[in-house]
Amino acid sequence: MSQKNQGRVLLCVTGMDPDDWMPLLSERRDVVQEPDGCDDPSITYAVVWHQKPGILSALPNLKAIFSIGAGVDHVLADDTLPAQVPIVRVVNNNLTKHMCDYVVWRVLDHHRRGQTYRAQQESRIWKRHPQPTSDEISIGIMGFGALGAAVADKLLAIGFQVHGWSRSKRSHAGVTCHHGDGGLDAFLAASDILVVLLPLTPQTIGILDYELLARLKQDGPLGGPVLINAGRGGLQKETDILRALDEKVLLQASLDVFEAEPLPPVSPLWTHGQVFVTPHAAAESDPAYLVPPMLDQMDTCDRGEALKNLVDRKAGY
Amino acid sequence: MSQKNQGRVLLCVTGMDPDDWMPLLSERRDVVQEPDGCDDPSITYAVVWHQKPGILSALPNLKAIFSIGAGVDHVLADDTLPAQVPIVRVVNNNLTKHMCDYVVWRVLDHHRRGQTYRAQQESRIWKRHPQPTSDEISIGIMGFGALGAAVADKLLAIGFQVHGWSRSKRSHAGVTCHHGDGGLDAFLAASDILVVLLPLTPQTIGILDYELLARLKQDGPLGGPVLINAGRGGLQKETDILRALDEKVLLQASLDVFEAEPLPPVSPLWTHGQVFVTPHAAAESDPAYLVPPMLDQMDTCDRGEALKNLVDRKAGY
Repeated sequence: MSQKNQGRVLLCVTGMDPDDWMPLLSERRDVVQEPDGCDDPSITYAVVWHQKPGILSALPNLKAIFSIGAGVDHVLADDTLPAQVPIVRVVNNNLTKHMCDYVVWRVLDHHRRGQTYRAQQESRIWKRHPQPTSDEISIGIMGFGALGAAVADKLLAIGFQVHGWSRSKRSHAGVTCHHGDGGLDAFLAASDILVVLLPLTPQTIGILDYELLARLKQDGPLGGPVLINAGRGGLQKETDILRALDEKVLLQASLDVFEAEPLPPVSPLWTHGQVFVTPHAAAESDPAYLVPPMLDQMDTCDRGEALKNLVDRKAGY
Repeated sequence: MSQKNQGRVLLCVTGMDPDDWMPLLSERRDVVQEPDGCDDPSITYAVVWHQKPGILSALPNLKAIFSIGAGVDHVLADDTLPAQVPIVRVVNNNLTKHMCDYVVWRVLDHHRRGQTYRAQQESRIWKRHPQPTSDEISIGIMGFGALGAAVADKLLAIGFQVHGWSRSKRSHAGVTCHHGDGGLDAFLAASDILVVLLPLTPQTIGILDYELLARLKQDGPLGGPVLINAGRGGLQKETDILRALDEKVLLQASLDVFEAEPLPPVSPLWTHGQVFVTPHAAAESDPAYLVPPMLDQMDTCDRGEALKNLVDRKAGY
């Protein structure tokens, strides 16, 4: 069932192994890997992760750009991006499941005092600590789109209280929704654990600074607020997070993303006793789940039908 | 609204602070703390945790024994227990919530490779590992009563597959139920992560031995099976668990309970890299939640009405 007579695909990935993507894409399309094919008129689609700036603008017949991953800041970072070509982002049940598993895991590890009990185990200390139940803890989800809503449903099922914050107004069963600059104060003041799922846009760069962390609920049952960033490293100011931890304005943090990735060996985050580091592993993009819908959308586009999950370039997501 | 003209209460706790229980019980009843009152005819109820053997049999007018905690092996261990006095066990929403939070936390920590990522962080290693989603993992709950069913519902909500095993036949929506000796093999072979919530009875002492652990699913997506014991320490043979871990028949274990508690400093479980130790803290009995229903049941009994949540002494729970 070869459809290889159709337009070719350019694969441009940086910091990711192209061999994870090549075989699956090649099952149904001719695929060219950059630096080859960079001005090839037979190429009509690009599949990208942190593409090299300028490479897409040289393609004369590009019909759509497919972003690997839910965030598209890595695509939009390219100033030379052709203005009229639609960008498709991943909306994928597998990625959502991974993210839900990660967030509930990290929330429970902070809620159940994992760090404290691990430290005690190292010193062979047998000591119980006061333990609130999940329904005594309030989780604030910052970035409350489709992914945030899915995460909220899992946290609600466990028993947590959930608040959501988004740029524009939303509503979701069981969740106290806040929005906009005007809603941020009440949202932060209600959050024992702040879960960040924001896209990286000009408006959100560096938003996780000392001033914001200091507005989180300071008198909750865990003894201080907790930050979980599973969005983008560019959202956070790491020196501010460290200052907030050292001043006990912030109790603990789970960080999956960083200002620079891989996290440099010199970063004090690696060794800070109240920080849990994972290597951007919360919701890795699995080619087996992501490639088939991309290929389906290419076929859709070739038939002249409308693409789904298009990026709003102005909003940045 | 004093009811203190009614029968008095004997409080007999070992390894627990009686002062946590005294004030709340004293709000509505006269309370005597052992060793006082050990043959007092005005005492009609006893509230106990590992009571000293013989103390209850000396009370001439004892109408009911209230066990602190969901398990009652600590009560039944007393050979001199008066034969006709009903034993009431804690059935409490707060305890159930704590246990659900604990089990989901430990399941996710093994599922998401917490031990691996913590070890990597110590060595500043940035490396992702293959990560199944929760729906690719099968959890086996051994001891599938009311508590097991509540835990199952939380695990199902996250997305895990759930199997249950109980002595007698049960059914529960979404759970593959197994029962009896005949159902044990299939249950164990289906379990990537074994969650133990069994009561400690003559039939279950030492049931978690090498032979049982070796029957768990060996070819699952985590690279080996995991044991989580939140039941009783007497269920497990700790030398067998260590052997199974060292032979890689078992990948990891989270143990909240131990053959001897507190876990002795010499135990190799403290320092085993694949074992996570908590100090019998999964679902601590909180007096604020447990005392009011005990006092209510005493009033019920005084009115001549039937007690709820009675222990079946023959079954041992």
